[in-house]
Amino acid sequence: MTPPEPELTAVAAEVLGVCRRRGLTIGVAESLTGGLLCAALTAVPGASSVVRGGVVAYATDRKAAVLGVPEELLEARGAVDPDVALAMARGVCTVMGTDVGLATTGVAGPDPQDGQPVGRVYLALVAPELHWVLNPDLNGDRDEIREQSVRRLLELAAELLATPVNR
Amino acid sequence: MTPPEPELTAVAAEVLGVCRRRGLTIGVAESLTGGLLCAALTAVPGASSVVRGGVVAYATDRKAAVLGVPEELLEARGAVDPDVALAMARGVCTVMGTDVGLATTGVAGPDPQDGQPVGRVYLALVAPELHWVLNPDLNGDRDEIREQSVRRLLELAAELLATPVNR
Repeated sequence: MTPPEPELTAVAAEVLGVCRRRGLTIGVAESLTGGLLCAALTAVPGASSVVRGGVVAYATDRKAAVLGVPEELLEARGAVDPDVALAMARGVCTVMGTDVGLATTGVAGPDPQDGQPVGRVYLALVAPELHWVLNPDLNGDRDEIREQSVRRLLELAAELLATPVNR
Repeated sequence: MTPPEPELTAVAAEVLGVCRRRGLTIGVAESLTGGLLCAALTAVPGASSVVRGGVVAYATDRKAAVLGVPEELLEARGAVDPDVALAMARGVCTVMGTDVGLATTGVAGPDPQDGQPVGRVYLALVAPELHWVLNPDLNGDRDEIREQSVRRLLELAAELLATPVNR
């Protein structure tokens, strides 16, 4: 395994910098990215002052059991769903005791899942007074879809967290 | 982030193949590797039939709260300890409902931690009738120590899980 590209580490470092300035901690909940998002953040030296931890809820039943995603929601819509992504992000804030939750769910391939095509992903961010789901349609092979999911969510976090909500 | 080196993915695929043949499922508990180990396993297509999930317990208190590592142990010895590694591996079997638990704890650097030098790592594997801790002294920068930790633990798992315990 080679280290993350400088560019991705740079985005991860930007997210950590924004959080450090605002005094925010991060928890990470992952499905299709399987640990890559948390690995990208923790590749940055000093990450431990911001990142408290992460949960890879790869099996669908772990999304309910560990992250508290409602079982009815998973049964009704499957794991690849925007509300599931949000519930994962909220859940990991509770499990890890953090201000910010980032979550990924989707289909990395090579096969479709729960009737959803390869490349469909939902990327969620929850933070104080903020919740957001990004739904990019991604192309490429399994590695590319996983990497693009990480990149898009880190870019979203760097942008959204840098701008505190107006009161 | 570039995909894992073919060689590491090959070791991960070997671990998954052994588990599939023996009907074993895997959970992953990580500290210094921060998600890289779970990411390496889930990079392999079809990983979901073996890997149920993982916990990155990056903050020390999460090792107790999420993985059930005894607080007294953490207070007495710090997080970089062979018994902590074993307790993390056992804990993730419970959290993820798996037969096999893999765990990493150690110091990736750049700075020492809990009085332990950069490169000191403990890599644990628990499986039915088996528990093992590897304590390699690793050299290199942060990325190299994290990657070598993943590689060593996957190699250990491929070897140990391929040989069922004699009865």
